[in-house]
Amino acid sequence: MTNHLKQFIDENLPKIEAELYDLVERIKAPQSLKDSMLYSLKAGGKRIRPLFVVAVCDLFHNKQQEALSVGAAVEMVHTYSLIHDDLPSMDDDDMRRGKPTNHVVYGEALATLAGDALNTLSFGVLARLENVEPQKKVELINLLSVASGAEGMVGGQVLDIDGESRSLNLPELEHVHINKTGAILRFSIESGAVLSDATKEERAALVEYAHHIGLAFQIQDDILDIVGTSEELGKTAGKDVQSDKSTYPALLTLEGANAKLEEHYDFALSALTKIEKNTSLLEEFASYIVKRNN
Amino acid sequence: MTNHLKQFIDENLPKIEAELYDLVERIKAPQSLKDSMLYSLKAGGKRIRPLFVVAVCDLFHNKQQEALSVGAAVEMVHTYSLIHDDLPSMDDDDMRRGKPTNHVVYGEALATLAGDALNTLSFGVLARLENVEPQKKVELINLLSVASGAEGMVGGQVLDIDGESRSLNLPELEHVHINKTGAILRFSIESGAVLSDATKEERAALVEYAHHIGLAFQIQDDILDIVGTSEELGKTAGKDVQSDKSTYPALLTLEGANAKLEEHYDFALSALTKIEKNTSLLEEFASYIVKRNN
Repeated sequence: MTNHLKQFIDENLPKIEAELYDLVERIKAPQSLKDSMLYSLKAGGKRIRPLFVVAVCDLFHNKQQEALSVGAAVEMVHTYSLIHDDLPSMDDDDMRRGKPTNHVVYGEALATLAGDALNTLSFGVLARLENVEPQKKVELINLLSVASGAEGMVGGQVLDIDGESRSLNLPELEHVHINKTGAILRFSIESGAVLSDATKEERAALVEYAHHIGLAFQIQDDILDIVGTSEELGKTAGKDVQSDKSTYPALLTLEGANAKLEEHYDFALSALTKIEKNTSLLEEFASYIVKRNN
Repeated sequence: MTNHLKQFIDENLPKIEAELYDLVERIKAPQSLKDSMLYSLKAGGKRIRPLFVVAVCDLFHNKQQEALSVGAAVEMVHTYSLIHDDLPSMDDDDMRRGKPTNHVVYGEALATLAGDALNTLSFGVLARLENVEPQKKVELINLLSVASGAEGMVGGQVLDIDGESRSLNLPELEHVHINKTGAILRFSIESGAVLSDATKEERAALVEYAHHIGLAFQIQDDILDIVGTSEELGKTAGKDVQSDKSTYPALLTLEGANAKLEEHYDFALSALTKIEKNTSLLEEFASYIVKRNN
């Protein structure tokens, strides 16, 4: 990671997390529910999605506080999806980021409800943004609903489950990832463009960047499952191979997956050249995602 | 049921259901997910919540199409809560409205995801309302998020689960219901007021009406569990007594619960007298809720 990116993260990560926790702590709700919601929000993670919201705003010298709240909303959606995904009826994972999963600590009923509450809260956070015009809030809410719902993330999870019972080909695998993880990453980046009044061309370039970053991120995830250790990953390594899951390395070999990763990395960088601004932070972000080992 | 109310329902129920199904059918998502979402949406029910949205708009001679979409959004939230509530880790119900529950037909994973998708879609529907100013959409989205999330419905479900392990007193039981079922009913009625530009006073009176109608509805539910048959209810009768659940009849005797029901009915009607309009439809609606046998 470059010093520039590290400095950006060191400066913004604490603010993002403070906003995230504060948004949940200030609601009036049963303590057990808030505890369960906060447990998973506080379980760590790289906060890539909210960092992207802030990084895109940064590109436009948009320093508004609201980027943190939009970032917190995306992180809530991401976290709810992990809580539900870990449930015994879904992936049945006991550990996540080196800690027991939500339902292991709070039981399945509360875990299900904590996920529901985080999903619902994310839209309330967007509706209550200060200093953002109503029309922009409506646009953000619509984008988040499409990105996280049946047409995006949830639809991708269904495709992923359907894919477990058979082998997917490359276009099918790509389609799963564009929905399951790509749509929310795209929202993170596009929402920054909406908040910052980006031009149509700038926004399109950022969406293109988001598309390739999303796929690169997922390919690296698949690669790490093979070359990473459980300790580094904070979750069981080698799970994909064991479950005979369709992955990029399984379809393309490890070498082919690495080549595909580089390809998307290059496309992401080339999308940024269409923006006449200093995109170095977003370039470094792309490199960070490709080079990460957890 | 009066002829007037029957005519209102006969006219609006088909429109509400058409809008509800259409909103799901037109999204681009995996067919299995759409099937699972539509299965529960089509499983019937009285559609009281969307009918209330339309009935309140009717009070203000507001005939706009958008009331149907707002009603559909509330029905999606209500339906998602039932799907999750029926899961084995929650109430573990195999039957609902005389049909196998969602997870019995589609499996727990898809049922969980169909619930998530309906929750998310409801906010998208509000964001995409046509002919409604952005500021109003934001207000509706904020109201729905509060009503259905940790501070409302989901919070009430947590209180309800907490309450299963001990006896609740009357204020505690009321607190559960005000959140678990009352908040969404209140949204149905308040959203009609927002759509129709009701005055502050009219809106406050409608919210008061909603509060008492919500409690009356729940007391009648508790009573029907004792005096109704499984056939009438489309679900197992006598479940509350069997599980030793805190209910109005358990706390107040059946006679006392009936008296409490009448009390809330009277308060609801008296709230309507503060509105200088023809509120007969809402009066009849109140009576219908109190007299219903399923």
